[in-house]
Amino acid sequence: MLPAARCTGARQLSHFATTSPRCHMIAAVGGPGASASLNKVVRGTHPALLVTSSSAIPAEEQAKLVETSKRLAAYQAVKDHLLSSYTRIGIGSGSTVVYVVEAIAALGPAATADMIFYPTGAQSEDLIEAAGLRLQYINKLPAAEQLDVAFDGADEVDADLNLIKGGGACLWQEKLVATAAKRFVCVADFRKLSARLGTSWKKGIPIEVLPMAAPRVLAELKAMGSHNPRIRPGLPGKAGAIVTDNGMWIIDAPFTPLLLPRDAEEGGIKAGNGDNGVWQVDALADKLIKIPGVAEIGLFYGNNGLEIASGAQKPVAAYFGMADGSVEVKTPIASA
Amino acid sequence: MLPAARCTGARQLSHFATTSPRCHMIAAVGGPGASASLNKVVRGTHPALLVTSSSAIPAEEQAKLVETSKRLAAYQAVKDHLLSSYTRIGIGSGSTVVYVVEAIAALGPAATADMIFYPTGAQSEDLIEAAGLRLQYINKLPAAEQLDVAFDGADEVDADLNLIKGGGACLWQEKLVATAAKRFVCVADFRKLSARLGTSWKKGIPIEVLPMAAPRVLAELKAMGSHNPRIRPGLPGKAGAIVTDNGMWIIDAPFTPLLLPRDAEEGGIKAGNGDNGVWQVDALADKLIKIPGVAEIGLFYGNNGLEIASGAQKPVAAYFGMADGSVEVKTPIASA
Amino acid sequence: MLPAARCTGARQLSHFATTSPRCHMIAAVGGPGASASLNKVVRGTHPALLVTSSSAIPAEEQAKLVETSKRLAAYQAVKDHLLSSYTRIGIGSGSTVVYVVEAIAALGPAATADMIFYPTGAQSEDLIEAAGLRLQYINKLPAAEQLDVAFDGADEVDADLNLIKGGGACLWQEKLVATAAKRFVCVADFRKLSARLGTSWKKGIPIEVLPMAAPRVLAELKAMGSHNPRIRPGLPGKAGAIVTDNGMWIIDAPFTPLLLPRDAEEGGIKAGNGDNGVWQVDALADKLIKIPGVAEIGLFYGNNGLEIASGAQKPVAAYFGMADGSVEVKTPIASA
Amino acid sequence: MLPAARCTGARQLSHFATTSPRCHMIAAVGGPGASASLNKVVRGTHPALLVTSSSAIPAEEQAKLVETSKRLAAYQAVKDHLLSSYTRIGIGSGSTVVYVVEAIAALGPAATADMIFYPTGAQSEDLIEAAGLRLQYINKLPAAEQLDVAFDGADEVDADLNLIKGGGACLWQEKLVATAAKRFVCVADFRKLSARLGTSWKKGIPIEVLPMAAPRVLAELKAMGSHNPRIRPGLPGKAGAIVTDNGMWIIDAPFTPLLLPRDAEEGGIKAGNGDNGVWQVDALADKLIKIPGVAEIGLFYGNNGLEIASGAQKPVAAYFGMADGSVEVKTPIASA
Repeated sequence: MLPAARCTGARQLSHFATTSPRCHMIAAVGGPGASASLNKVVRGTHPALLVTSSSAIPAEEQAKLVETSKRLAAYQAVKDHLLSSYTRIGIGSGSTVVYVVEAIAALGPAATADMIFYPTGAQSEDLIEAAGLRLQYINKLPAAEQLDVAFDGADEVDADLNLIKGGGACLWQEKLVATAAKRFVCVADFRKLSARLGTSWKKGIPIEVLPMAAPRVLAELKAMGSHNPRIRPGLPGKAGAIVTDNGMWIIDAPFTPLLLPRDAEEGGIKAGNGDNGVWQVDALADKLIKIPGVAEIGLFYGNNGLEIASGAQKPVAAYFGMADGSVEVKTPIASA
Repeated sequence: MLPAARCTGARQLSHFATTSPRCHMIAAVGGPGASASLNKVVRGTHPALLVTSSSAIPAEEQAKLVETSKRLAAYQAVKDHLLSSYTRIGIGSGSTVVYVVEAIAALGPAATADMIFYPTGAQSEDLIEAAGLRLQYINKLPAAEQLDVAFDGADEVDADLNLIKGGGACLWQEKLVATAAKRFVCVADFRKLSARLGTSWKKGIPIEVLPMAAPRVLAELKAMGSHNPRIRPGLPGKAGAIVTDNGMWIIDAPFTPLLLPRDAEEGGIKAGNGDNGVWQVDALADKLIKIPGVAEIGLFYGNNGLEIASGAQKPVAAYFGMADGSVEVKTPIASA
Repeated sequence: MLPAARCTGARQLSHFATTSPRCHMIAAVGGPGASASLNKVVRGTHPALLVTSSSAIPAEEQAKLVETSKRLAAYQAVKDHLLSSYTRIGIGSGSTVVYVVEAIAALGPAATADMIFYPTGAQSEDLIEAAGLRLQYINKLPAAEQLDVAFDGADEVDADLNLIKGGGACLWQEKLVATAAKRFVCVADFRKLSARLGTSWKKGIPIEVLPMAAPRVLAELKAMGSHNPRIRPGLPGKAGAIVTDNGMWIIDAPFTPLLLPRDAEEGGIKAGNGDNGVWQVDALADKLIKIPGVAEIGLFYGNNGLEIASGAQKPVAAYFGMADGSVEVKTPIASA
Repeated sequence: MLPAARCTGARQLSHFATTSPRCHMIAAVGGPGASASLNKVVRGTHPALLVTSSSAIPAEEQAKLVETSKRLAAYQAVKDHLLSSYTRIGIGSGSTVVYVVEAIAALGPAATADMIFYPTGAQSEDLIEAAGLRLQYINKLPAAEQLDVAFDGADEVDADLNLIKGGGACLWQEKLVATAAKRFVCVADFRKLSARLGTSWKKGIPIEVLPMAAPRVLAELKAMGSHNPRIRPGLPGKAGAIVTDNGMWIIDAPFTPLLLPRDAEEGGIKAGNGDNGVWQVDALADKLIKIPGVAEIGLFYGNNGLEIASGAQKPVAAYFGMADGSVEVKTPIASA
């Protein structure tokens, strides 16, 4: 089992040529926070987890295997990125975050006694409290301080670690927490891994909008090349549109898979500026956020916490539970 | 086919003894608004609708039959209660209201030229506009005026025409529109018809609450005997709770089927005051609305527009599309 | 200086005959929580406070004196009602509550180490945190638990300790906190003390309403006899209406001063049912809360925590800083 | 009376060197919409308005004169920019807009019969309805259509017609309406006229933010050089922060007066990129809108409707009622 092969596999999801992002198979061994461990390529052997081959097993077994691998990914992410000296930790939403909190709680009360946990919404708030961890809200983070690290899931992750988030309509809070952290770590399962955003996540980029602006935003999105953007419905629980915790609506705007800078530069011509509805991630994000009526967008892009000191949106590492029960780690490509 | 039998059938849904509400089988014949037509018991024969026997037909056919009967009910309700002199009409939400608007539009532009339609939410707003009818919002209704009539659906209707509404999380707006009307007319299908509220609608009474109050309201509801009341979830479109268009949450609170006054008086003992979690409709509503944190409740109860001049919550008539394709009309029991 | 004389003075604010509520002049002496101390009638001599005669002193001095007396009232309320065994304490809003928190903090870290404080809004949240006390939100209060005590101000207090609250547009949160407490204690200055509600507070009863319902609620209020009810404006900070933290509007509805039960029974005729716009407090509150579109009302009425085990809205005691620098305490009239 | 002198006066408000924007004194003569009329420099002589010299007159008279000149400016703006063929017109907020609606209504029912008016909030909605004009909401504007023109006020206007708006907390709605229009026309009084934004309007740039993000946004604003940015308070009507009609808060962020592109290019060095807290308008706006937690900003900048076909934020003309009762018109500098 070679990480290169797996990364190739990821690339095969797309027709885009890619350079090689750092991509590793890792295991639940190695010291906490040891970045060196990122280079280890070992099958996961987390205690209490039994990892087996994924070939030719029944669907039910496969589903269990996915859960097992998500759990393993979460444990590994916590092991690598939750240093014992940390005191402020962001906790995101979603099915994988359940295992992140489980992994943190498993460190024991002594290890977490000085840690405060900042949720992105009601689900993570409940997880934190149920685990007996100390809860605080992001608006209480002292102005001069940052979170040491934040863990969250994603709806899709591309080869440069750009993210689509917002499937749970909590993207505004999630961006607040992620950008308040020195380091943002993404944990997900293999289905979220794509070469380019929009490849496997076909529902579109979630965009949080002022309800009275929704028709104008929809028109603008269509003019930009979005394919059938639509207001997310509230059914079955609510007639009409979903209302976010911020009183906004969500528009899901599908686009042709988003280019990376290296795609845009290929062939000596500039691409990704929206011609024919083809966008490079950053160019699209820059345009979307400025549409009047848009409150926030579900693209996490730009820099990561290794590149800038504050406000980073991209993760410094993404952990994926794979179909075969192993864990894959993606880290930013060295710029050199 | 006898209406008495049908009403008996409705009673059989419950273990409660009932007196006989007025209950009629009607057809799409008779003059608009002619209350005399309510006494006719005829199989529906609306033009363009073919009503057949419901016995021993496939599920798909049955489903079509239900739609046919809902449509027939809507046309009949409009025929009976939308007088040509009316100028302000409330339009509610739900699958049956689609046919109400269709029936109104079918009257033609000349008939509706002077009519203004007031929706209860986004769905009915869209219906009104799509039908080319004139839209206005309830907050624009002149203070000294009332709607002439309002049509809306229900999640459940009991023998006294008390209603449960709020399955679409629009109960607050729906109550505003219903109570602004001189006459409120309910249109639904036979599955909404029960002898007592809580018999077939098992999800509970929808209660719109201030989010920060939800835990206290839940505790109070349990103390009052509600069985497993819970905050309505937003999934799949939103993690956490559904948020209403008013920024509130919905708690669905199931109770033991609600007594009517005549039940409470039976046997010489007073019942329905909450002992053992058994409530009479009005007593429960009076208590629910006063719980701090409760904004509005999905019980429509008390008086109807024939009994009081303004603020009525109960319909003056309820039209049901039946399983066999016919229409049943329920009107209030004469108090004499 | 006689308490009877002061109470007479309070009665003179109104043309209503009153029976004698318990009304005491007290001092900052006596053990914490000692209800016996409520019977003491002594000029206040709180350490660090110098109380002087109020006669013939300049306006600036008088203003200082009022602050001094408010502070004295707050210290006394805390001394009497914050037992050392208490662990959950509600903290309200307003200028007098500043002194309540000061008085609590003055007890020292050892005394408050096991206490958690639940605010009614941003101001009290800030006060709690600035004082180094432990903050928690009311939605985190365990469902089976109550606050031991809650302290809050009022816009007006009548002879039966009914309150008008909501001048700061936080009435919904304030009612949640007050009704979650076993004991609710009111602290204010003498200007808030009236024989009947609506005597000195002329702005009206604050009513929190759904914005789209405001015109209908205004019409209903006028029909009930309110004198020029109006939507509270947002100026200078906001054009249009004030929006509450709950997304609602506030209507201020002035009424003829509200009768108490003993007024309504006088003369052998029943009064206060709204005839000629004259209302008894409880009858008005019962009617207001049921108006569709009303979320909550700024009348705190009904029972107090000595009378019912949960959900009380009226204080068990009200402490007033008086114009002469003394403190007056009002407690419920013994029902015997 | 020379426009050059007046423009010089405006320049004298600032220490920045300026090129000459087009700046005219005009009168209420000339055909509607005739851009040629913009070149006329005549003292206003609107019917029913008496314009006198402003020198040496009492304060009360001066105040009346300002109102007279605001009214004259509004009439002139309507005359020049409300073509008779227009059918969709945006109507903004503020004291000058009152006269805009008055001027439109004065055209008579025949002239406005085919016109629909789109308000930015409750105030303009009331104005439109009181004037008997046809009201519609911006979310009802067909997706493929634009407003023909929109009229609105401003808190400050600079030499390039960049605007600060949001003093009434309606900036989000105002930007939606302005950017939905082919032409945006600003009407104000002379006190709003500055060479650079931040010169006379010292309260700061209004920024609409998600409440839970306010502390992080404040910290970011300080890091960017804002002088004492603060959350706008709700007093006297509401304790705590102002809540907008969108459920957000407003932060008012004062900055050193904002450079124009020509300032930034002076001296051969690039300035206005935030060094020492000095910002060029567009650079600041671009940065502000991307701060996580920011929903919309009160800077109207970039292009105007003569430069781009849709989404323009800057006015094509600004009309100012001057201290002497005359009207001054500013139009964009020709780029040639």
